[in-house]
Amino acid sequence: MEAVKKDRCRLIAAATGTIPCDLSIENIRLVNVITGEIYPACVDILDGVIVNVRDSSVPCSSKKRIDGKANYLLPGFIDTHVHVDSTMMTPENFARAVMPWGTTTVISDPHEIVNVMGIDGMLFMLKSAQKEPLRHYMLAPPCVPSVPGLENSGCTFTEKEVGFLLDQPNVIGIAELMNYIDICKNDERMHQIIEEGIQRDVFLQGHGPRLTGNMLTAYRLAGIRSDHECRGTQEVIEKSRMGMNLNFKTSSLSNHLAASLQGIKEQRWKDNISLCTDDVHTRVILEEGHLNRVVRKAIEYGADPLVAIRFATYNAAREYGFRDLGAIAPGYAADMQLVSALDGSRPERVWIGGEEVGCVKEEETAVHLTTGNDSDKTSFTVHLDYLTAESDFELCAPDDAEETLVIYSRYDEPFHSSFYEKLPIQDGKVDITHDKDLAYIGVFNRHGLESKTISVIRNFKVTSGAFATTVAHDCHNLIMVYRDVKDALIAANKIKEMGGGFAYVENGKVLGSLQLPIGGLMSYLPCERLGVQVKEMEELVEQRCSGNWLLKLSTTALPALPGTIITDVGVLDGTSRKLIPQFRSKQKTE
Amino acid sequence: MEAVKKDRCRLIAAATGTIPCDLSIENIRLVNVITGEIYPACVDILDGVIVNVRDSSVPCSSKKRIDGKANYLLPGFIDTHVHVDSTMMTPENFARAVMPWGTTTVISDPHEIVNVMGIDGMLFMLKSAQKEPLRHYMLAPPCVPSVPGLENSGCTFTEKEVGFLLDQPNVIGIAELMNYIDICKNDERMHQIIEEGIQRDVFLQGHGPRLTGNMLTAYRLAGIRSDHECRGTQEVIEKSRMGMNLNFKTSSLSNHLAASLQGIKEQRWKDNISLCTDDVHTRVILEEGHLNRVVRKAIEYGADPLVAIRFATYNAAREYGFRDLGAIAPGYAADMQLVSALDGSRPERVWIGGEEVGCVKEEETAVHLTTGNDSDKTSFTVHLDYLTAESDFELCAPDDAEETLVIYSRYDEPFHSSFYEKLPIQDGKVDITHDKDLAYIGVFNRHGLESKTISVIRNFKVTSGAFATTVAHDCHNLIMVYRDVKDALIAANKIKEMGGGFAYVENGKVLGSLQLPIGGLMSYLPCERLGVQVKEMEELVEQRCSGNWLLKLSTTALPALPGTIITDVGVLDGTSRKLIPQFRSKQKTE
Repeated sequence: MEAVKKDRCRLIAAATGTIPCDLSIENIRLVNVITGEIYPACVDILDGVIVNVRDSSVPCSSKKRIDGKANYLLPGFIDTHVHVDSTMMTPENFARAVMPWGTTTVISDPHEIVNVMGIDGMLFMLKSAQKEPLRHYMLAPPCVPSVPGLENSGCTFTEKEVGFLLDQPNVIGIAELMNYIDICKNDERMHQIIEEGIQRDVFLQGHGPRLTGNMLTAYRLAGIRSDHECRGTQEVIEKSRMGMNLNFKTSSLSNHLAASLQGIKEQRWKDNISLCTDDVHTRVILEEGHLNRVVRKAIEYGADPLVAIRFATYNAAREYGFRDLGAIAPGYAADMQLVSALDGSRPERVWIGGEEVGCVKEEETAVHLTTGNDSDKTSFTVHLDYLTAESDFELCAPDDAEETLVIYSRYDEPFHSSFYEKLPIQDGKVDITHDKDLAYIGVFNRHGLESKTISVIRNFKVTSGAFATTVAHDCHNLIMVYRDVKDALIAANKIKEMGGGFAYVENGKVLGSLQLPIGGLMSYLPCERLGVQVKEMEELVEQRCSGNWLLKLSTTALPALPGTIITDVGVLDGTSRKLIPQFRSKQKTE
Repeated sequence: MEAVKKDRCRLIAAATGTIPCDLSIENIRLVNVITGEIYPACVDILDGVIVNVRDSSVPCSSKKRIDGKANYLLPGFIDTHVHVDSTMMTPENFARAVMPWGTTTVISDPHEIVNVMGIDGMLFMLKSAQKEPLRHYMLAPPCVPSVPGLENSGCTFTEKEVGFLLDQPNVIGIAELMNYIDICKNDERMHQIIEEGIQRDVFLQGHGPRLTGNMLTAYRLAGIRSDHECRGTQEVIEKSRMGMNLNFKTSSLSNHLAASLQGIKEQRWKDNISLCTDDVHTRVILEEGHLNRVVRKAIEYGADPLVAIRFATYNAAREYGFRDLGAIAPGYAADMQLVSALDGSRPERVWIGGEEVGCVKEEETAVHLTTGNDSDKTSFTVHLDYLTAESDFELCAPDDAEETLVIYSRYDEPFHSSFYEKLPIQDGKVDITHDKDLAYIGVFNRHGLESKTISVIRNFKVTSGAFATTVAHDCHNLIMVYRDVKDALIAANKIKEMGGGFAYVENGKVLGSLQLPIGGLMSYLPCERLGVQVKEMEELVEQRCSGNWLLKLSTTALPALPGTIITDVGVLDGTSRKLIPQFRSKQKTE
């Protein structure tokens, strides 16, 4: 597959000196990620494509010349798995945020917005992505919702919706096939969806946390090509030996990069390793960078710089079958970055298709603020009119309840467990006032149903008030943790009013909020401005919840993960996919 | 692209233990060409596909078990560029000859037979290839003839014929685009042909001997992906840095493997290197092997055995985009070989799609002898009725001829040069009887035209009689070297009578002949029998021509090569593509 449509006769004419090139970048040290060599060179570009990589002694006619000042010229970085909607930015603003950090291509999975808005959500993302030069390819989300029957999202995808999306321009595969359990059980629905991809011979992206042995083998045999969920050394060894494309990450949710790198240390060839950001926050992009940050971390963890750069360029391009991305050589897209050191730091200059994209000016940002707001369909996705009273947030117990299920928040990772505890029950309602380590947790459908689940969580560090958000993977129903039902109602109303986002309420007052009007997930603000708001919200949450972080809550409703999960359908075990009763009666405990 | 259509649900059922596998190969040392590791394992197979690669402690239900006796299990070898028609065997017999040597996939270019028979020739090859389990993919020849206007073949291809062939099953790209000069000059015909490949996003195979600098760049920019003509270290460095797929070879015509390996020695990554045989003879296959022979030579020249094996397996599969060939892992085709040492020697056992193919029994050979002979279209391609008299083989000089062009045979490589010499002219005919180092050389159209060129060659080592063959790349007209016109007529008649092949005539007697009735290029005989005949013919040629070899003559008529070339149109310079006058007149030399 080629990313750039080329007028080959013009390129040949430029190579043979019949017509001039558009641009020559001279006096650079070329980082050849194909062979692993670094040598002085000049690079000539026409129509956004690299024509020559030549020695300075060879002349080339060119309309413009740039002195590279003996810096390194690398290919632009390619992020092999990212949820742009999780950055809370539109694809357009995301592009403007990451391009200056050297990212020139991303392969994204817009499954957050698609769970809310269905096909319209993906079309919005595709359209927004076209507004900036960043090469933004998307994968069609297959698990909408992630586990049908155990959660209710804004829509339900069959193979027809996936097939429709696969036929859209810039859609190059099926996004992370999260429900590996169904796939390995030969579930018909999932195999029909996979077949859409097999028929088109497109990429099938995996998601197999802790998968091993014959389950991993079965998952691979289904046609799944990749995984970005490696959490340990042995997992990396097993998956890489199978020839899976492994996307190592440091996301905002997890960092297993060091262990992952350890897994390939003794392996002679690492051609199938790439890097990704998965879920990454605005503030991190703003302050630390994008894929260059993962490159930097990999180098810090001991990876050879050239190897880390190859992961983020040539290997990534090959993973998706792009023959003209990820390297600097004749015929490749002129996606390049000039860096002063091979350490993942911010590049001096960045080009995509030969156009400089590195410097975003403030006045341009202002323009984009208004042009982004062009899709009415993206608004009004938060339907919570059924929540009107404080009592809507109370946890009612049956008459014979003896013990209440308590979700135990594992502070250091996203997987929770659960236990039964004897909690006081007052007037048929579970009372947690006696124990400051407990809070209510509720998931409220916001897609037109009135389904909700309220439970109790331990160790989540919310000691007063209510914390609410519509960012709750993958259905993005309203999820709340609260000590006080009055505050809970106020928080829900605030979320409703904003059309989605985050809110923190205490003692009847909204202490902080973050408006995300696009599907309750994204803002129209550019990174610089959104970053400030996100940071304020983060600091508030950290301060009020004893160091807990903003998106900790957001993965608690994702039944594709192992551990205890809460959705609008109930509390369940993510591994067995079974509902867990919220109460034990007196008879049962005897 | 996947080579094997899979019933994924059955494979998953086998992996999860619901149904048994067909075959388990146990007690082997697995050579993992993906990661570069070797470890003990068992391999389970269902429906021709690898289900598990497992530790012996993990049980697997299987219908049949084989003890690998602690030998190495490697993927089968993949030949990335071969002209099967040049082996003089049908694809069916070729398969039976190479499979026992561990070759399980070949990507062939049938441009010899296509130059003779056009589309029918390729369809014959495709049909014959289907008769054996060898995975035989073909590329559509684009240069038919190699240089239009400078030679006359059996047909002329435009983009329509190439497009038609690209749409046939098992045709996966365009074969070697030999006329790089036309391509780099933006010749419209060649670019229309290339566009057929670009539109279908298929492989574009290159052929760029000694191409360098901006001509090489232009060739690459045309979309050409590979090259198998590297002759020197610097050439390899330049081409590999561009990301070209380089097919290193030891063919029967040339061996630049040592120099090629030297070129990549200092390069850290060698992912784009594969191995090929290009033109390889029956006798070599019979005695020394097929692609394993190239692997063996590479190791002898200093390549790390695992690296050489990776070239011949994983790299080769990736070159053509096969995701399920070239490695041993779940989901890959069960194309494997069991070897006692990692040195390219003959394997103990070979499987293709889980079926054992290593041992060809004599009685089966006899059966194939008859079944192969099913296409009448392949006969009667040698049209030489216009050659009836000894005088048809004489070299006539114009009245004012002062000097005669003499082709100088470069003994150690296929490229000839030429000079003018004062040769005696008797009765208007050039006489060479005085100089034993000279011979006549003639190319006679055999495709329905009566065009012919007769010249003089020095240093070809034919000292008496006539040596004739219809194997003359790529048009495969009749080419002859002779001292005696009587013998020449007899040789031509013998070739006519056989429907093509080789003949050596001396003093009016046919000393030896080799019948190649399929297009004048191939025999219906299997390798074991054809090999004996070829060897006899080779020994005869070596004996009569002072050590010259059988196919030396066969590249002398190929205008896509540099140096002096002779075709039915005239004597010409392959580099400039210009005809060279065969005589200098008195005026001109003054």
